[in-house]
Amino acid sequence: MISNAQEKYEARARALNTMLCVGLDPDFSKIPDRFENDEYPQLAFNKWVIDETHEYALAYKPNTAFYEARGARGIEELRMTMEYVQTQHPDILTILDAKRGDIGNTNLGYCAFAFDYLKADAITLHPYLGKEALQPFLDREDKLSIILCRTSNSGSEEFQDIKSEGKPLWEKVAENVAQKWNQKNNCMLVVGATYPQEMKRIREITGDMTFLVPGVGAQGGSVAGVLTNGLNSKAAGLIINSSRGIIFAESPKEEARKLVEEIGNYIKS
Amino acid sequence: MISNAQEKYEARARALNTMLCVGLDPDFSKIPDRFENDEYPQLAFNKWVIDETHEYALAYKPNTAFYEARGARGIEELRMTMEYVQTQHPDILTILDAKRGDIGNTNLGYCAFAFDYLKADAITLHPYLGKEALQPFLDREDKLSIILCRTSNSGSEEFQDIKSEGKPLWEKVAENVAQKWNQKNNCMLVVGATYPQEMKRIREITGDMTFLVPGVGAQGGSVAGVLTNGLNSKAAGLIINSSRGIIFAESPKEEARKLVEEIGNYIKS
Repeated sequence: MISNAQEKYEARARALNTMLCVGLDPDFSKIPDRFENDEYPQLAFNKWVIDETHEYALAYKPNTAFYEARGARGIEELRMTMEYVQTQHPDILTILDAKRGDIGNTNLGYCAFAFDYLKADAITLHPYLGKEALQPFLDREDKLSIILCRTSNSGSEEFQDIKSEGKPLWEKVAENVAQKWNQKNNCMLVVGATYPQEMKRIREITGDMTFLVPGVGAQGGSVAGVLTNGLNSKAAGLIINSSRGIIFAESPKEEARKLVEEIGNYIKS
Repeated sequence: MISNAQEKYEARARALNTMLCVGLDPDFSKIPDRFENDEYPQLAFNKWVIDETHEYALAYKPNTAFYEARGARGIEELRMTMEYVQTQHPDILTILDAKRGDIGNTNLGYCAFAFDYLKADAITLHPYLGKEALQPFLDREDKLSIILCRTSNSGSEEFQDIKSEGKPLWEKVAENVAQKWNQKNNCMLVVGATYPQEMKRIREITGDMTFLVPGVGAQGGSVAGVLTNGLNSKAAGLIINSSRGIIFAESPKEEARKLVEEIGNYIKS
């Protein structure tokens, strides 16, 4: 068994030739009625999604917001979901989409939550407080820190596009993470599919660093745009996330298969 | 009973003439031995701190990291802590120091966690994704959104000091929050005590907006520096936080009293 998250990612991506990340976002107002009366409704829904999609999945990415909405019960079902992936499919990467970021030692609490309690392989982080603050995450060389760089949402330009000497903030974040934060080879970046030109520039800046890419499908980003601009020198380096488009489909399996096929066809061509 | 968080804040500050916020950060490695064997150790510790300090407290501010470190159990004790404050001392403001920030509808989950499940009056937020993303928080006019502006940690300059046309990022955040985000008069800013000159400038930009001020004491910020530079035109507008300096003292009551006295003496002089 591989204990290092970076190696686990590379092994799974190579073995399956897949870049697909399935977002486990069990929005309580959207999960099918048949799960609602289960003792553990979010877990039951997630298990179904995982059973349907695991043969195509490089990674699963639960977003903590959907679980915290239900308080301690939701957190317990998040833990059970992570355990289900880790026991049934130990080769699949688990990314906790938590978008955390506090100062220094306070982050040890979030590290304990993500890496010890939930045993996640990776966590997403806000860059605003700087490297020194996030050092407790970066020190975990067995885990992955995935830093928000250019986010997929409309309105992300408000601060991310602020330019200093012609260079926008997202470019500075990409530079610093690639040059200064990634000393243990355990950093990745969040780069939205909705900003392909920015992705191209971030690829130039960061060499072969891997990007976690939200925003395909419902948010309007295209697979072709992502692959054209985001692939690294090894025709890899992308973890392409789909949440709603897969998990709330009638057949998550079919949607996952189609997305993997679309990615595969593009890379072959 | 006042249902609006902004009015609750103003009423408590006026009635007690206090600016003290006590950070409820029950780091498991630091809480006194006598609480460790309690069925609910973090709650038991917090209750003791609250019983000791409530007569001086404008606000209590639990940081979610210390509770999440213990998973669902910690979240349950966080909820019980909030409930204890809200039932025993309904006039005291509760600030969830969660430093959250996701895109659009995903934030509804965090709103449900902070405002509905925990019934917090306020939450701290990262600005990186912009106003449009954080709209679900800003739409809650009964609650307070406290946006990270200039954080107290060393290393905060990495991105916060990036200058565009001579204006650092923290200044742009202050401007945008004051001019564009605060349409429902429910925004505050986090401004670290460790950066008094920046605080002075942020005061100039934001008029009478209230600042949540961490960094006094253990982190090296001074009360005099904060009051000199941070008071608004009504000799108010500051929520000064102390965590470790109070909660891990032999007598939290005495430390809280001394800090309130120090603040009071300065304002009178």
